[in-house]
Amino acid sequence: MDEFARIEKFLAPLAGEAGLGLKDDAAVLSPPAGRQLVLTVDQMLEGVHFFTDDNPALIARKLLRRNLSDLAAMGAVPLGYLLTTALPAALPEAWLAAFAQGLETDQRVFGIVLLGGDSSSARADISLTATLIGHVAPGQALPRHGARAGDHIWVTGTIGDAALGLEARRGKLRDRTGFLTNRSLLPEPRLNLPLAGIVSAAIDISDGLVQDLAHICRGSGLAAEIQANAIPKSAAVAELDDDYLELRLTGGDDYELLLAVPPEKADALQGACADVPVTRIGVFQPGEGVNIVSGSGAKLALSSSGWKHF
Amino acid sequence: MDEFARIEKFLAPLAGEAGLGLKDDAAVLSPPAGRQLVLTVDQMLEGVHFFTDDNPALIARKLLRRNLSDLAAMGAVPLGYLLTTALPAALPEAWLAAFAQGLETDQRVFGIVLLGGDSSSARADISLTATLIGHVAPGQALPRHGARAGDHIWVTGTIGDAALGLEARRGKLRDRTGFLTNRSLLPEPRLNLPLAGIVSAAIDISDGLVQDLAHICRGSGLAAEIQANAIPKSAAVAELDDDYLELRLTGGDDYELLLAVPPEKADALQGACADVPVTRIGVFQPGEGVNIVSGSGAKLALSSSGWKHF
Repeated sequence: MDEFARIEKFLAPLAGEAGLGLKDDAAVLSPPAGRQLVLTVDQMLEGVHFFTDDNPALIARKLLRRNLSDLAAMGAVPLGYLLTTALPAALPEAWLAAFAQGLETDQRVFGIVLLGGDSSSARADISLTATLIGHVAPGQALPRHGARAGDHIWVTGTIGDAALGLEARRGKLRDRTGFLTNRSLLPEPRLNLPLAGIVSAAIDISDGLVQDLAHICRGSGLAAEIQANAIPKSAAVAELDDDYLELRLTGGDDYELLLAVPPEKADALQGACADVPVTRIGVFQPGEGVNIVSGSGAKLALSSSGWKHF
Repeated sequence: MDEFARIEKFLAPLAGEAGLGLKDDAAVLSPPAGRQLVLTVDQMLEGVHFFTDDNPALIARKLLRRNLSDLAAMGAVPLGYLLTTALPAALPEAWLAAFAQGLETDQRVFGIVLLGGDSSSARADISLTATLIGHVAPGQALPRHGARAGDHIWVTGTIGDAALGLEARRGKLRDRTGFLTNRSLLPEPRLNLPLAGIVSAAIDISDGLVQDLAHICRGSGLAAEIQANAIPKSAAVAELDDDYLELRLTGGDDYELLLAVPPEKADALQGACADVPVTRIGVFQPGEGVNIVSGSGAKLALSSSGWKHF
């Protein structure tokens, strides 16, 4: 089955109107009237972002969800995507069938369509890239660099599950219910939270809590202090026989939102996040760097400030 | 030098206003008022689309130009791009410096800006993807599937140079002036031709004349007949000691436009392409498939209907 037959069979059925049946050189999109467009791109590489024998449907869904999380961090509404694949010639047709099935599932979940793309043969590793297009009311995109001294630091959901899920998949700890593994394979982008006018900065936690917080600090010219005990922990983590604090601080792939919120906006934040738990974990201060304070008030040192891909 | 330092040093200087200094999760773009957006993506992989020791600046420029050619085939005006890179950790900093220099050169040539992107480490091969965004007046995007029986087949420029340039780079023929090699490394996207209302179908020749013509035929439900002798040949090809007809028919990477034009629009076409040579090479007919007629009137058979990446 050659490149064109593969596209025709598995990907063309996923195309929206603007995708022109994936038969054209490009997609033609009428932007929603009076909106700004938000554009983001993320890749997933075999051996870097996923294991060779991972479920192709879950790879597809995570590829979309990583990008959808970037749109969530901008406060944008997703619209559609372009897909780029580089696949080894020997890859079984069933792999692509399952991959396309995963795309279809999450297209329905998130109300997005395939707009176009590019496919190529690869010499070795599978390489996948999605470009997501969303939209936002003019001037309402959430900033990354707007944190001010005194703003509180909040996170959605629970932190560290994905990194611990990866450890479980490597056999390093026991994931009794499968919750952690699922958090690693199928993140939940925090879309549809009406955060404009409430948060002064937002980022999604893809590289790890400390590293992504450091991005906001650098962009805003501030330091951050977080309370280790305040970092929200899932029930699955709470029942483990170790605290795994360092991994929860530095592990990536959670795709929760990290938010800077003026103290007087705390109620508004909790109102906006009615269906998503939000937790205050610290405060922005003048200075630079990320400080972590333990329960006893001692400062913690980290051996690594970020997450390295496996 | 880590991923963030690389981005800051080499890519952030290329970012336009909508790119938010490449520090945000996504780009925010105000679409040009009253225009449709045209979106396309193309990748270039080490060992598939370029050789490992190719000049990084030329790889960068070809990456942009392949995508710009897709916009040209849609009649779109380019605006900006997202860039995705996967680079081996051992890649010298000088490679990325030269690559960024190539991007900067063609950003100036084509009036485009970097809007955002993603970078990752790669296990082995370099992988590069660009998503280009352009715009077009509503309803004026050039169709791929609108050819009608009786439309003539036209091409811009000369055909086969890039494939012969690749042969020259492999030592299989002598490229006396370097013209063919240059055509292979640095294609010229045929932007800014006012073809709306003149052509009934357009495609850029990336996979090879016969294969891309076959795309139009399938999309339009037609056959095509082309005259082998009519296919325009550069002076550099004319002085070779072989005709290389099959390679010129099937070789890719020329990035010339292949157009379906009603006979009565021939003058309008030539007026629209005042600075770009255009040549009539055949006609669309009822039926299916691509027929090639030699000077003696005999039908030619091809051993391959398309171009395979090296």
